[in-house]
Amino acid sequence: MTAFHDYGQAFALLKENANEAWRDYTRHDFVEGLKDGSLSKNNFLHYLKQDYIFLIHFSRAWGLAIAKSQSLDEMKAAATTVDALVNHEMALHVTICEAAGISEAELLQTVEEAENMAYTRYVLEAGYSGDWLDLVAALLPCVLGYGEIGKRLKTEKTSDTYQDWIKTYSGEEYQDVCYNVGKLFDIGLRNRLGDAYQQTPRWQALNQIFLDATRLEVGFWTMGMRG
Amino acid sequence: MTAFHDYGQAFALLKENANEAWRDYTRHDFVEGLKDGSLSKNNFLHYLKQDYIFLIHFSRAWGLAIAKSQSLDEMKAAATTVDALVNHEMALHVTICEAAGISEAELLQTVEEAENMAYTRYVLEAGYSGDWLDLVAALLPCVLGYGEIGKRLKTEKTSDTYQDWIKTYSGEEYQDVCYNVGKLFDIGLRNRLGDAYQQTPRWQALNQIFLDATRLEVGFWTMGMRG
Amino acid sequence: MTAFHDYGQAFALLKENANEAWRDYTRHDFVEGLKDGSLSKNNFLHYLKQDYIFLIHFSRAWGLAIAKSQSLDEMKAAATTVDALVNHEMALHVTICEAAGISEAELLQTVEEAENMAYTRYVLEAGYSGDWLDLVAALLPCVLGYGEIGKRLKTEKTSDTYQDWIKTYSGEEYQDVCYNVGKLFDIGLRNRLGDAYQQTPRWQALNQIFLDATRLEVGFWTMGMRG
Amino acid sequence: MTAFHDYGQAFALLKENANEAWRDYTRHDFVEGLKDGSLSKNNFLHYLKQDYIFLIHFSRAWGLAIAKSQSLDEMKAAATTVDALVNHEMALHVTICEAAGISEAELLQTVEEAENMAYTRYVLEAGYSGDWLDLVAALLPCVLGYGEIGKRLKTEKTSDTYQDWIKTYSGEEYQDVCYNVGKLFDIGLRNRLGDAYQQTPRWQALNQIFLDATRLEVGFWTMGMRG
Repeated sequence: MTAFHDYGQAFALLKENANEAWRDYTRHDFVEGLKDGSLSKNNFLHYLKQDYIFLIHFSRAWGLAIAKSQSLDEMKAAATTVDALVNHEMALHVTICEAAGISEAELLQTVEEAENMAYTRYVLEAGYSGDWLDLVAALLPCVLGYGEIGKRLKTEKTSDTYQDWIKTYSGEEYQDVCYNVGKLFDIGLRNRLGDAYQQTPRWQALNQIFLDATRLEVGFWTMGMRG
Repeated sequence: MTAFHDYGQAFALLKENANEAWRDYTRHDFVEGLKDGSLSKNNFLHYLKQDYIFLIHFSRAWGLAIAKSQSLDEMKAAATTVDALVNHEMALHVTICEAAGISEAELLQTVEEAENMAYTRYVLEAGYSGDWLDLVAALLPCVLGYGEIGKRLKTEKTSDTYQDWIKTYSGEEYQDVCYNVGKLFDIGLRNRLGDAYQQTPRWQALNQIFLDATRLEVGFWTMGMRG
Repeated sequence: MTAFHDYGQAFALLKENANEAWRDYTRHDFVEGLKDGSLSKNNFLHYLKQDYIFLIHFSRAWGLAIAKSQSLDEMKAAATTVDALVNHEMALHVTICEAAGISEAELLQTVEEAENMAYTRYVLEAGYSGDWLDLVAALLPCVLGYGEIGKRLKTEKTSDTYQDWIKTYSGEEYQDVCYNVGKLFDIGLRNRLGDAYQQTPRWQALNQIFLDATRLEVGFWTMGMRG
Repeated sequence: MTAFHDYGQAFALLKENANEAWRDYTRHDFVEGLKDGSLSKNNFLHYLKQDYIFLIHFSRAWGLAIAKSQSLDEMKAAATTVDALVNHEMALHVTICEAAGISEAELLQTVEEAENMAYTRYVLEAGYSGDWLDLVAALLPCVLGYGEIGKRLKTEKTSDTYQDWIKTYSGEEYQDVCYNVGKLFDIGLRNRLGDAYQQTPRWQALNQIFLDATRLEVGFWTMGMRG
């Protein structure tokens, strides 16, 4: 029953700091369109195709998180995530797309849009140039933002048009991922910066990364609506 | 008198392949506005501020090129470039901005825009995830595109409003940089992929990187015009 | 029945080129001591403890291989490997060590020896500075060398003292890993350098990496015998 | 007159923590042989040849430090260092070697020894997997250790055989480098971990890196004596 837990202390603070950008991201027109079914099918399909490419780079970022881990727990968490992503969720994504009329061949020929590149490359670069904390701080807006959106839409939705999407991210399985990633980050922060991590300049830098990544997520939704 | 030389064989091929995107980039409204002076001062200042942040990440990318070098010549070229960038050109940029009414304090507080992040992080990530060729292929659109634009605008300009900018990039010093970087890439290609490099799948992948990076440069100009 | 297959074309060529170093590695006194049981228990335990630390960095390297992949097949292969390593084999290693009288606490306090660092950091650095090919070329001596040693010792062993070790690496499961990794590298080579990959300078560079890594593996065995 | 300054607060603490390893490194037989002239010329030449390869990777590591910088000051310091290394010191090294009877061709054909690889790859990998602090912590034993050895040998030397080497590292120019790098690290630490950096787990991790790197430097001298 971890699904009702929150996503940890650091996330609560990062989100508060990102404030407006966080609201722009989690209450974007795209999201509201999922909620009330007003999002056009074209937009949704456009998003799905870009999301497939996104998942490839997102998986690569979790692979990098393994290389950047400092404990076996961090390695295990990232390895489990990446295995789930590339050996299961991407296949699921292909199935969903096929059901929606997008063949795998079409998926693979999708031209990656600028906003898509912008977010994934930002995450990967933050990870390569920084350490595990920088990498995970850049991944959090995606992982936990989807969890938060899923939870809210489950309650607030007024249409069943996008219920599959909502079920996926509000479901216990995904919510557990969020709970675990949030906890992993809380522990990782303390294991590196100590209990007084909020007093370190690093914490400010991590807030900046979280904020930048959140802004780039806003762009991702906006791109979806161009489809 | 290297200034009249072209920028090498590989560049000619990459550019031809990028075709439309290359034209969109090198003949962007922003560029045409520099040519005929119709670009608003606000747009130019907006661009200058973003360009300062750009130079930081561009310098980091050249630093990475040192780490990724396979010959002393490659190391020397990148070291010279990065030294020129951080110990001279960035100071020059500050001077130019001050003359245009932007203080250094204002420069440092500039919020990095999404299109700016998109290009620089793409370059750095291509470099980290790939090898020296991937990194330099992603840097080329910026380095050589500016050289090509500078050369053309020197001849075609109908206004002196942006003559300093045009002089910088059409000047012998910058043209020499372009000539040398183009040559370095030609040699680096052959030293890794052989004389038949155009027959390798790697060459296709490098064309894709060059194309993606060119598309992201288009976005950079468009961002400039939003200022 | 893949267990009887060889480990691919590239490996055969790399091994031939590494020649003496390959023999020094695969016919090291440590290996011969596993074969005839003459290796002292102290040496073996010393090796096991170092090998635990080795597995951590080896897993990190496979994590990096995910980030460096250019196809979903490459990502899947690396993700499966890393998941097996950190979620199963490392636990198995702890069990083996406990059976041999080394507690997990002792394992975690092991001071990493220079030869151990030398090999794992070489692999990771080759991967970070180069591309997927460089990384995998540095991993091959370990993955495939153990497979080759296991196969030979299964037939040639004159003692059952180290039969568990020999069974692990001669077993079908591990042999399948070797077969698949060898094939993955063959395909990865062609997908990047083309069918004429042996004509490229990159191929020479990959041979150098394989040779360096093999020499560092020799040092690893020698370290084991110091225990 | 910065030459008489020490190398900063963090270095003093790191050195104290590395204790025995630091003494083994800075008072190694190789070093004592430089002091009293008892080091054989063969050993010295062997060291010089390996040191040339070392400088290549050391320069690459400083290049990476540019990519990993978080301030313009850090970028400038690394860019100046790397420019000095590849555009001046490596040429100087070639001259010294030629004077000692080693041609540049011979230099370039030197086979890199395991202990050499072990240290440089450790540094680079610490940098790639970690952040700027990890990278610089791994570089410090080399940069500052040579400074400390140089200073001591200048006073204690009983032979002029290796006075050129001693002059280089005890000279004001090199001592200034040490002073500046020590200060850069002190500032970099506080800019990331805060004034209470010694209370963070990160500080312990940096001490471990410094210790590991120091141990690998011991191996480098030992290798020198095998020549």
